[in-house]
Amino acid sequence: MLDGLVISIDAMGGDEAPDMVIKGLEYFLTHEGKGRRARFLLHGDQAKLTPLLAKAPRTRERSEVVHTEKTISMDDKPSQALRRGKDSSMWNAVAAVKAKRAEIALSAGNTGALMAMSKLQLRMKQGVQRPALAALWPKENGVSVVLDVGANIDVDAAQLTEFAVMGEAYHKALYKSESPSIGLLNVGTEDQKGNAVIRAAHERLSESQLGLNYAGYVEGNDISTGTVDVIVTDGFTGNIALKTAEGMAKLIGTFFNEALQGNFWSKMLTFLNAYALFKLKRRIDPRRVNGAVFLGLNGIVIKSHGGTDRVGFANAVNIAILLAETDFMHAIDVRLDALHDEDDNIGFIP
Amino acid sequence: MLDGLVISIDAMGGDEAPDMVIKGLEYFLTHEGKGRRARFLLHGDQAKLTPLLAKAPRTRERSEVVHTEKTISMDDKPSQALRRGKDSSMWNAVAAVKAKRAEIALSAGNTGALMAMSKLQLRMKQGVQRPALAALWPKENGVSVVLDVGANIDVDAAQLTEFAVMGEAYHKALYKSESPSIGLLNVGTEDQKGNAVIRAAHERLSESQLGLNYAGYVEGNDISTGTVDVIVTDGFTGNIALKTAEGMAKLIGTFFNEALQGNFWSKMLTFLNAYALFKLKRRIDPRRVNGAVFLGLNGIVIKSHGGTDRVGFANAVNIAILLAETDFMHAIDVRLDALHDEDDNIGFIP
Repeated sequence: MLDGLVISIDAMGGDEAPDMVIKGLEYFLTHEGKGRRARFLLHGDQAKLTPLLAKAPRTRERSEVVHTEKTISMDDKPSQALRRGKDSSMWNAVAAVKAKRAEIALSAGNTGALMAMSKLQLRMKQGVQRPALAALWPKENGVSVVLDVGANIDVDAAQLTEFAVMGEAYHKALYKSESPSIGLLNVGTEDQKGNAVIRAAHERLSESQLGLNYAGYVEGNDISTGTVDVIVTDGFTGNIALKTAEGMAKLIGTFFNEALQGNFWSKMLTFLNAYALFKLKRRIDPRRVNGAVFLGLNGIVIKSHGGTDRVGFANAVNIAILLAETDFMHAIDVRLDALHDEDDNIGFIP
Repeated sequence: MLDGLVISIDAMGGDEAPDMVIKGLEYFLTHEGKGRRARFLLHGDQAKLTPLLAKAPRTRERSEVVHTEKTISMDDKPSQALRRGKDSSMWNAVAAVKAKRAEIALSAGNTGALMAMSKLQLRMKQGVQRPALAALWPKENGVSVVLDVGANIDVDAAQLTEFAVMGEAYHKALYKSESPSIGLLNVGTEDQKGNAVIRAAHERLSESQLGLNYAGYVEGNDISTGTVDVIVTDGFTGNIALKTAEGMAKLIGTFFNEALQGNFWSKMLTFLNAYALFKLKRRIDPRRVNGAVFLGLNGIVIKSHGGTDRVGFANAVNIAILLAETDFMHAIDVRLDALHDEDDNIGFIP
């Protein structure tokens, strides 16, 4: 039987699973995770996992395989996944959290399916309508939390205020921050900007007596500048902002490589640049911020990028363990309850 | 009296106006605009413009000052600007286009005020509800057009389809492209993704027989990758995507500079890197894509970034002249009419 902190892992989720998953765990246990007492429930095909575990001794020692042959594909619609995916590796990974056999579930599989299964099995916290997906974003001094990045396409003002308190709790748990500042993403900083939903959320957050460090509206460029620690937005805008920034970072990388190509001197430069580029790449490496969390559920579920490699997956494992070690779930409950009580007191209608 | 192509310029609009405006014109006439027959109507304070023009001989030779002391501030709300801004430099710049004394108006002033004044004076093309603001975006091979980037916070499916045909006409006019590809910005590429408005626009564009090169849904990362030439989105999402990408580019610049700092060897590297960095900076220089156009009006109005310098302003002047030389306005009319006729034929209700 496993002891210590248990992470429940969908070993079959992700573009290169299960290979990438096992390599990611081994990478984690060899680097950041060295000496950590965490253990893993690996949900997936025993026949495929056994040979991989044979080459990953640290992971094998800390893991227990829960066999299932059923998997969810990246193309399955959430409704299909719910109908046909019971007892799949993803389903079982979440089920272990529900059954309290694990603290946290982690999957690099299909986001929509993972959300649907998590919602169905773990259920939403009282008063919360749908989970929000919170991503990490590199900024000048540290990392900020952006939510929602894709789970809620249409939101109301009440959801945006819930995102604010859940994002605050998440930033506190991961970065031990005292009072992370919160911004509401908009197309300008003047009061009249944006649509009715955003203005209602802005008014509600401005009036709150919950001690939120609310900084008002922020704009797109503020996300990377790092004006605030938590950026609140709807899932449509957040998803597009996140992917647009990834695209821009990639474009600059391409342009830089092209600028360094050409003649002998350019090639020498590439060589001499290696160290500076290494440092730069480390800071903007998307793998270092891999791992988004579903917030608002009665249990923690982490979503790794489906196309990540072992280093990125190891980072998601690290986030899972950092969260499991805190009283994050309780902190969210306390803040959400306080928010909803305040809603009732002031008669807030979103 | 002026002859040749006439550009009507709000000489008092922009953070550093009128200085930056006159320097931008002089820069344009010294570089890209050398030998161009364009002439300029400069709307603004004669007392401030005369000494600046004395130091800008090429601009002085090709310009006529239309005196007004009234200006619109960057903080004025559109409604205030409309009430109090008649006969301001911005108002007069647009009025000259209405009176056919100029082909195009250009301002680096307050975006909301410029849109409101343009709409009131020039009026919308038949069937179009509000202007769309189209921006240029650097991509791997060339430049793409993104619209709307801030004029329309809430849109319906009919507006999104109008953006598609107007963006197509704009790309054709600026880049002489035969059949620019068009993508609809969404949070995924599967049919069921997005909200009802986007899905309705997708269906409408997919069914159109107008010969649009419609590529379907694109995601945030596709904007910089350059999957398509024209990216269609609502003004809220477009504005945030644009500013988020600017912020990410700036962050990478900061990280790169930090990576190059430190010891003697790093400093040598900075020096050796100068050429590669110069080439890189040229390609991602936001000034090279400065100049957004309001589409859907009976007349062309260009908006320069308020904080740009002379190089950026010169680029906006260049776009204005490129557009004025084409049959862009007629091309938009033809395509919008065809779209609206098709709407009627198929009984499209947005």
